[in-house]
Amino acid sequence: MNVVSYQPAPEELSYTFGGRPAVGRVRPGTVVELFTEDCFGGRVRGFGDLPSKVCEFPYLNPVTGPFHVEGAEPGDTLALHFISIEPARDWAVSTTFPHFGALTGTHTTAMLQPPLDEVVWLYEVDREKRVVRYQARRGDFAVEMPLDPMHGTVGVAPAASEARMTITPDAHGGNMDTPELRAGVTVYLGVNVDGALFSIGDGHCRQGHGEVCGTAVEAAMNTVVAVDLIKGVTTPWPRLEDDLHIMSTGSARPLEDAYRISQHDLVTWTSSLTGLDELDAYQLVSQGAEAPVGNVCDTNYTMVAKIPKAYLNTPTPYASTHTTLRTLSTHYLTTR
Amino acid sequence: MNVVSYQPAPEELSYTFGGRPAVGRVRPGTVVELFTEDCFGGRVRGFGDLPSKVCEFPYLNPVTGPFHVEGAEPGDTLALHFISIEPARDWAVSTTFPHFGALTGTHTTAMLQPPLDEVVWLYEVDREKRVVRYQARRGDFAVEMPLDPMHGTVGVAPAASEARMTITPDAHGGNMDTPELRAGVTVYLGVNVDGALFSIGDGHCRQGHGEVCGTAVEAAMNTVVAVDLIKGVTTPWPRLEDDLHIMSTGSARPLEDAYRISQHDLVTWTSSLTGLDELDAYQLVSQGAEAPVGNVCDTNYTMVAKIPKAYLNTPTPYASTHTTLRTLSTHYLTTR
Amino acid sequence: MNVVSYQPAPEELSYTFGGRPAVGRVRPGTVVELFTEDCFGGRVRGFGDLPSKVCEFPYLNPVTGPFHVEGAEPGDTLALHFISIEPARDWAVSTTFPHFGALTGTHTTAMLQPPLDEVVWLYEVDREKRVVRYQARRGDFAVEMPLDPMHGTVGVAPAASEARMTITPDAHGGNMDTPELRAGVTVYLGVNVDGALFSIGDGHCRQGHGEVCGTAVEAAMNTVVAVDLIKGVTTPWPRLEDDLHIMSTGSARPLEDAYRISQHDLVTWTSSLTGLDELDAYQLVSQGAEAPVGNVCDTNYTMVAKIPKAYLNTPTPYASTHTTLRTLSTHYLTTR
Amino acid sequence: MNVVSYQPAPEELSYTFGGRPAVGRVRPGTVVELFTEDCFGGRVRGFGDLPSKVCEFPYLNPVTGPFHVEGAEPGDTLALHFISIEPARDWAVSTTFPHFGALTGTHTTAMLQPPLDEVVWLYEVDREKRVVRYQARRGDFAVEMPLDPMHGTVGVAPAASEARMTITPDAHGGNMDTPELRAGVTVYLGVNVDGALFSIGDGHCRQGHGEVCGTAVEAAMNTVVAVDLIKGVTTPWPRLEDDLHIMSTGSARPLEDAYRISQHDLVTWTSSLTGLDELDAYQLVSQGAEAPVGNVCDTNYTMVAKIPKAYLNTPTPYASTHTTLRTLSTHYLTTR
Repeated sequence: MNVVSYQPAPEELSYTFGGRPAVGRVRPGTVVELFTEDCFGGRVRGFGDLPSKVCEFPYLNPVTGPFHVEGAEPGDTLALHFISIEPARDWAVSTTFPHFGALTGTHTTAMLQPPLDEVVWLYEVDREKRVVRYQARRGDFAVEMPLDPMHGTVGVAPAASEARMTITPDAHGGNMDTPELRAGVTVYLGVNVDGALFSIGDGHCRQGHGEVCGTAVEAAMNTVVAVDLIKGVTTPWPRLEDDLHIMSTGSARPLEDAYRISQHDLVTWTSSLTGLDELDAYQLVSQGAEAPVGNVCDTNYTMVAKIPKAYLNTPTPYASTHTTLRTLSTHYLTTR
Repeated sequence: MNVVSYQPAPEELSYTFGGRPAVGRVRPGTVVELFTEDCFGGRVRGFGDLPSKVCEFPYLNPVTGPFHVEGAEPGDTLALHFISIEPARDWAVSTTFPHFGALTGTHTTAMLQPPLDEVVWLYEVDREKRVVRYQARRGDFAVEMPLDPMHGTVGVAPAASEARMTITPDAHGGNMDTPELRAGVTVYLGVNVDGALFSIGDGHCRQGHGEVCGTAVEAAMNTVVAVDLIKGVTTPWPRLEDDLHIMSTGSARPLEDAYRISQHDLVTWTSSLTGLDELDAYQLVSQGAEAPVGNVCDTNYTMVAKIPKAYLNTPTPYASTHTTLRTLSTHYLTTR
Repeated sequence: MNVVSYQPAPEELSYTFGGRPAVGRVRPGTVVELFTEDCFGGRVRGFGDLPSKVCEFPYLNPVTGPFHVEGAEPGDTLALHFISIEPARDWAVSTTFPHFGALTGTHTTAMLQPPLDEVVWLYEVDREKRVVRYQARRGDFAVEMPLDPMHGTVGVAPAASEARMTITPDAHGGNMDTPELRAGVTVYLGVNVDGALFSIGDGHCRQGHGEVCGTAVEAAMNTVVAVDLIKGVTTPWPRLEDDLHIMSTGSARPLEDAYRISQHDLVTWTSSLTGLDELDAYQLVSQGAEAPVGNVCDTNYTMVAKIPKAYLNTPTPYASTHTTLRTLSTHYLTTR
Repeated sequence: MNVVSYQPAPEELSYTFGGRPAVGRVRPGTVVELFTEDCFGGRVRGFGDLPSKVCEFPYLNPVTGPFHVEGAEPGDTLALHFISIEPARDWAVSTTFPHFGALTGTHTTAMLQPPLDEVVWLYEVDREKRVVRYQARRGDFAVEMPLDPMHGTVGVAPAASEARMTITPDAHGGNMDTPELRAGVTVYLGVNVDGALFSIGDGHCRQGHGEVCGTAVEAAMNTVVAVDLIKGVTTPWPRLEDDLHIMSTGSARPLEDAYRISQHDLVTWTSSLTGLDELDAYQLVSQGAEAPVGNVCDTNYTMVAKIPKAYLNTPTPYASTHTTLRTLSTHYLTTR
């Protein structure tokens, strides 16, 4: 088993997908242990650390990477299996941010109303008990919610020589902010440039559907990911697979277009996995699929279309890549 | 216990909310046993029964009702607790329909492309085994999926002297098409006219999130609902409550506005239930709420915002109406 | 020439399309002289008359009518030619309104931000000089802009037994708020119920594209309209014609769907008027049509698609109804 | 007068804004004569030259540039005054393109319907008579429409180290596709990187509002542009000025957000030019502004907000840069 560890120095963090050279090279089959900073670059640590003061645009939402995957070429698919995602600190943070979030005017949903107050919330992270503790800023209300770690941002270099801010989700991945991207999940990403150039960041201890206020329970993470490559197979939009489900994603505005992309991909993927006629697949997905919301606050919105593999009579997508990486994951977890 | 049974004659079915007189009167505290036809009026029973041929606009999506609730006035809230929702037949049906559904041009998302093929699927409904059986039209693929009965359409007469087609969801309820509206759930609807005038229809044996092809596993239902009235309490958009969650709905286009309405209502409702400051409630909902998609195919789209009551330290909304109706439900189910 | 005059008493004003009986009957070929109140029911006359205080929901945007047109049946088209639209007073008014308008959160684009200030602006209307005079509320800035009177609201009873608030534009017409609806224009509306039941209201002395703050230069109007009926010809969405252009409208959300409806109708109408293949018509409209924005503030948004008749080699739509009514208009104006 | 001429070799054409070095350097005050290829790279010249066959993604919509403007730094505004835009050939071309355009499903408005036919239309361009000649593909219909040359694409390198395909309009400019960008107009663009790095392309002989079929009357152009720099003045979104109007643009999805951005910018710009309170400016723009549609087919949609300078009591934005460049233009045109 080939294991690589990487801890980025602050100046090594990336703020785009595309447009910069790799920080490292890995071979397919490698397990990568890496550290990711939180979306504020670790600068928001107290109630007075308002993001608009301590963070500087565009140095937001740093990602760790990019990593060059040996042998990856346009037309291939990169598989990233998340072996573990663990909070690196015993605290996490969330905030409102002026003109950001779903229940406020923004720079594109432009309004004349003044922004909402900018407020910081601090969470205790109890890794033993597997909970985070919410504490109201005004009043005594407190409650524990389950720890459910995930990465908001994962992606590769975009097509067409583009470079995109990490905040933006699109066909290359990016800031999809879906709680489905947790440990035990394999992410499939279409490769657009030699080496794929994947990066990972924006850990969340947990997140509601849509990240309605604009930020989740933001945390630095220690994450372990297994890397694989499926040669000669394209993937139009990021896809996910866990032991029981396959999932398609779509990122666009308005939100119904994100829904359409994700459902369209799940229908056509279902058709190719099962041999079903496209309308038969449309019908099956219509009755069997869930549509967990990713984000409704970023520069594109993200929806996920998710169906139990059992409803498809249990296909093995991408030549059983998920199963292979699950085995590698077990091996890693039992031998480290 | 006051129990009323109602089986509509075909000519008694309604096709609007508002604009017609009540078919019956009920007192708060009544249990109503009723029959609802499927969205095709029961006319699609075989592969040749194309809806565009056997159904006639606007006689689509019939509802049973409206019922006048004694004492209900504008400014009150009607509570409907679904005691049971059971398929009335051993089959159900789904179809595509020309220029209807999320992955086709429609009359409003107007396109020059020809419509998709109109196809009928028939489902076996096994009420013992609690499954429906999908069978592909082209090929041998078949699979069972869990039976999860729900009503797509429930609502009251709209405000402002409006009458709306039953197909449209809005602040008065209507065709929200959320799978969350299953047995065990209490629905809260703001009353707009004397007597509230509620109706129920559009039963589904199960439904994916968004009803992407435009129709679910459509079925006639035998449904039992307990009726209650909360005087002097307004409800801006339909809300739901089950034993573990409270839920807000929003129906609008684009889909992000349906999301915004539902999340906004859940934030302000959370604030009033917990005493939390509005921004504190925004933060809590951001990390704790799910957003199950209702429909992305009707004339308005519907989103639901859903949070565990435990995260709110277990409030008792509407003066414990859900608990009261739960008790009534148990009583009904054990004594009938 | 058959001329009818109608001045509604306050209690005769309508607040819906559909759902109420006619205030009068007219034969095709009739010229109707009528008075319309402003959208505030004439209650906003000074800086202190905030609409949220002096107006009562749903008694907003009153229309004059409905009029029963003899012989009109579903499947026909009603033609209304606006002979003249003249401000009835020497003042007009505009306001902001809480949570209404394009640059503020609204009840559907729901936000947590407080509303904008509610402010009233009064305009002098100089009917001789054909200008309105804007005067800033805070400061001395003043400017004259051309008087360009129009009706925001015109429509018939909707299909499917619906009744809709006058504020809503849809396939039946309603509150389209397009500045293209000025004197000299013929409006074509598909008939949904016997007698058509048309109403007119919401006069504007002038309006920018989109009515961005939510209200125009609102004024009571003395309006003269010639009524005609085209038997056996359907009209899917409201259409307009002036001496030089034909226009299609679409009302929906999001705004691109209003655009799609209007352009789709103009393409298919162009095809039927010229005999062009549908893709050839698509190409011609693509290069030749303007898309004046109606409203981006109402419950549906409205777009207009407008092409010079010269680009279509000057067809005569609806059997030259516009020309016929133009002649009637000239006769009326020269003989009154 | 400093005049520079530039004719790009095919391999010098650019397909992104950002991400590549300048092809030349110019000082403020320079007049640049340049050639731009059409959006198909000149490869579509006959009915058989289907874009999907003769063009290769992502080598679409080439632009000429980028040019480094000496002294330009982030925080400045670049002014580009279009002295002339003249078709370089006596023909132009338009097409449909699979899954592109407003009346078809696309890659984001994803649908299961097959694409529309891909068809090429050729236009004669009569530069003397100032017309283009449309000729139907199926049938004899032909018509002349006025020549009204414009550039669909103009922009600078984006902020935040991004590189964007030229097809995308956003805050940096790009493929706005507004017919308002014709000769006699000054475009203002916020500078994001040293040298600004502006490029120009996508000439249209004329275009309808929204470019509904996805392409305009596409043509190579000989264009003359005067370059100026306003130091220390920011511009959030591209703005335009002609002799009689100022204009703001917005590019986003859904279309109402493009509208909101453009109107919001025009309101705040009006406020700063006139000293009007923001709500007073909101009111004035509401009654005085037009909203010509740019595109409703690209990856972002574009709207323009346009108001006569007379309604603002004739301010001189950007320290009369437009007037200065108008004078330079006159000088150039009379002395070349």
